[in-house]
Amino acid sequence: MSVGAESFGRLWSQLEPIGRDPGTGGYRRYAWTREDLTLREWFAGEAAARGLDLSTDRAGNQWAWWGNPDAAVAAGNSGLVIGSHLDSVPDGGAFDGPLGVASSFAALDVLRHEGFSPSRPIAVAQFGDEEGARFGIACAGSRLITGALDADRARSLTDADGISMAEAITSAGGRPEDLGRDEQTLRRIGTFVELHVEQGRRLIDLGRPVAVGTSIWPHGRWRFDLAGQGNHAGTTRLADRHDPMLSLATILQTARALAEQGEVLATCGKLQVRPNGVNAIPSSVTGWLDARGADAEHVRALVDAFGDVVARHDGQFVQESWTDETFFSPGLTRRLSKLLDEAPLLPTGAGHDAGILANAGIETAMLYVRNPTGISHSPEEYAELSDCLEGVDALARTVQELAG
Amino acid sequence: MSVGAESFGRLWSQLEPIGRDPGTGGYRRYAWTREDLTLREWFAGEAAARGLDLSTDRAGNQWAWWGNPDAAVAAGNSGLVIGSHLDSVPDGGAFDGPLGVASSFAALDVLRHEGFSPSRPIAVAQFGDEEGARFGIACAGSRLITGALDADRARSLTDADGISMAEAITSAGGRPEDLGRDEQTLRRIGTFVELHVEQGRRLIDLGRPVAVGTSIWPHGRWRFDLAGQGNHAGTTRLADRHDPMLSLATILQTARALAEQGEVLATCGKLQVRPNGVNAIPSSVTGWLDARGADAEHVRALVDAFGDVVARHDGQFVQESWTDETFFSPGLTRRLSKLLDEAPLLPTGAGHDAGILANAGIETAMLYVRNPTGISHSPEEYAELSDCLEGVDALARTVQELAG
Repeated sequence: MSVGAESFGRLWSQLEPIGRDPGTGGYRRYAWTREDLTLREWFAGEAAARGLDLSTDRAGNQWAWWGNPDAAVAAGNSGLVIGSHLDSVPDGGAFDGPLGVASSFAALDVLRHEGFSPSRPIAVAQFGDEEGARFGIACAGSRLITGALDADRARSLTDADGISMAEAITSAGGRPEDLGRDEQTLRRIGTFVELHVEQGRRLIDLGRPVAVGTSIWPHGRWRFDLAGQGNHAGTTRLADRHDPMLSLATILQTARALAEQGEVLATCGKLQVRPNGVNAIPSSVTGWLDARGADAEHVRALVDAFGDVVARHDGQFVQESWTDETFFSPGLTRRLSKLLDEAPLLPTGAGHDAGILANAGIETAMLYVRNPTGISHSPEEYAELSDCLEGVDALARTVQELAG
Repeated sequence: MSVGAESFGRLWSQLEPIGRDPGTGGYRRYAWTREDLTLREWFAGEAAARGLDLSTDRAGNQWAWWGNPDAAVAAGNSGLVIGSHLDSVPDGGAFDGPLGVASSFAALDVLRHEGFSPSRPIAVAQFGDEEGARFGIACAGSRLITGALDADRARSLTDADGISMAEAITSAGGRPEDLGRDEQTLRRIGTFVELHVEQGRRLIDLGRPVAVGTSIWPHGRWRFDLAGQGNHAGTTRLADRHDPMLSLATILQTARALAEQGEVLATCGKLQVRPNGVNAIPSSVTGWLDARGADAEHVRALVDAFGDVVARHDGQFVQESWTDETFFSPGLTRRLSKLLDEAPLLPTGAGHDAGILANAGIETAMLYVRNPTGISHSPEEYAELSDCLEGVDALARTVQELAG
């Protein structure tokens, strides 16, 4: 067995059980939970096993450095960072995030086995709270250190149980008062390359195991709150009802119809019904809209039209996040595609920490590993082991190219 | 201040804080929770304070007896029971249930103050799990002791966290193995009179504080499960989606349209979306239908048509409960109406433990206390104190009439 296969297999088998729900088979790895702490301990252990220097930045993202990044900065050089995230959406798959982190450690193992001597410091990174599953803001870890997410706003975000991010970080032994733009950490990152499982079917069609990312579609999240009059389901006449479920039905249909018209993606994947009792007309329904597309104007037009429909139902409509179209570094992208046997160049609708760092002016690139079903954010998300090992190999060649 | 006012006021102020959510102001008093145990302790304490004999039946319902019911049965007599329930729907009001229990203790206090000497044993009862908020079956306590709910089925019902009723009872210090039809308890109940806040606006229109119930509409609960394909909201083409939210939208509209056509009530008040992530197309949506009406055939026709629409969306449709039209004892109902100054006679769409006991062949009646807004199953549910005291007085006169 090759060093890459042995190393990746061991890393993967350690990660697989952490936070997997026995009922659904999906992962529930949310920021600052016990599962998250277990993943952070795992990361620290892998760093220590390789003699890498572990550091944690102001937002709690973890960095395992090979070489001294601050000395490199002082000498006019900077680090090469590879990695991804370890958290998940509710009942997410095993690959979204962890594939990039495991592949990064495995790529370093391959290079070190080959006697590789780096020309610049190299880090494996894991960004916290990439999915935003608990507090609603995706890529919270990378947004915080780049200043794209305000520290006060982040601290006051609450989860479904009303626990604030500040409280969650404190409970997990962290320091919420440290949140904020992290200049020292940003200076260390000369280049960031994130490897990620593909969340679509393009590589199947192309018959290739690995692609290089070009851009991330403009995308955002919005919340709508529909008020009703809570009342007894068995005694309230239809004419006396103010039932927000009826507004919800129209609004769900609106999202799809507008998406088809506008050639963009629109999804309502999350609802909160209060009080959510079988024999009670709801007093309120809250829902979320996720909208994205290749053309920002089309997305904005959909969101405006959707917001108008919410307003016509006397609902509140609030933007929770918005990210413009993001381009990874074009020169680096072309260089990696050429290096990796003319790997195909793909845009994506999915947000990533690499996109946040790109928007902060850092040189970035992404590698995608084939997904045989295209399914992601689901327990059925999958990648063949042979394709994962192609990803490890591509990442090792990338490090050799950029830090050789 | 009158004895009734003093007693009711004290009882009410003790009950008010138990299980009230500080955020919504609504009550969360679910079966076999800490709040439920606090309510049970309160009941036991009130029984003890009056020298009543506390007993707990096979389903955990509590009985506070004045006089020996078994001796009465042996002598060819039987008991008079007054009471209601103490649990709530999610974010329910203060009155639905507890008003009947507090009024029952207060009515006994009034009678005993007047030196009343009963001709038969009298009990105050509180039935557990009337709302079915935790395990989905309404009137579980009365259904269990009458055999209308099978003990094995009850034990295996699970709450939203997957905890079975058997486990919940055990955790609360009870004995799930005791569940089952309770002949001894049933024999003791010669007559049951339940006082309840009105869940509608008829007494406002009639300008009266108290009514006597005639019947409960036929009613039931059904569950529908809509399967989808969980996937990433940002990368899955519209054409590749199998999004159960679109089926849900149609089904919510179907319930309302069929209700209007059929002149019955239909409500979808509860939903469970999985995984319920902003950036994930749901893998499934489960919803519940509550349907009721004066005419059972109309209700059945609605449910059949609704089930057809669920089936056309490849959904599963399951009946969770069904109760035929229930009549309280006509002779007793007329007698109480006459006694209470020709109190109006009202049917209701709401299920009650008195209905379950009526279906088991027990002589039953209900008293309703005016609700100035008609709102129920909501934190805004309300009854004026003066109307509550009219209810206590009506109940005291009822006991005098039936056990004097």
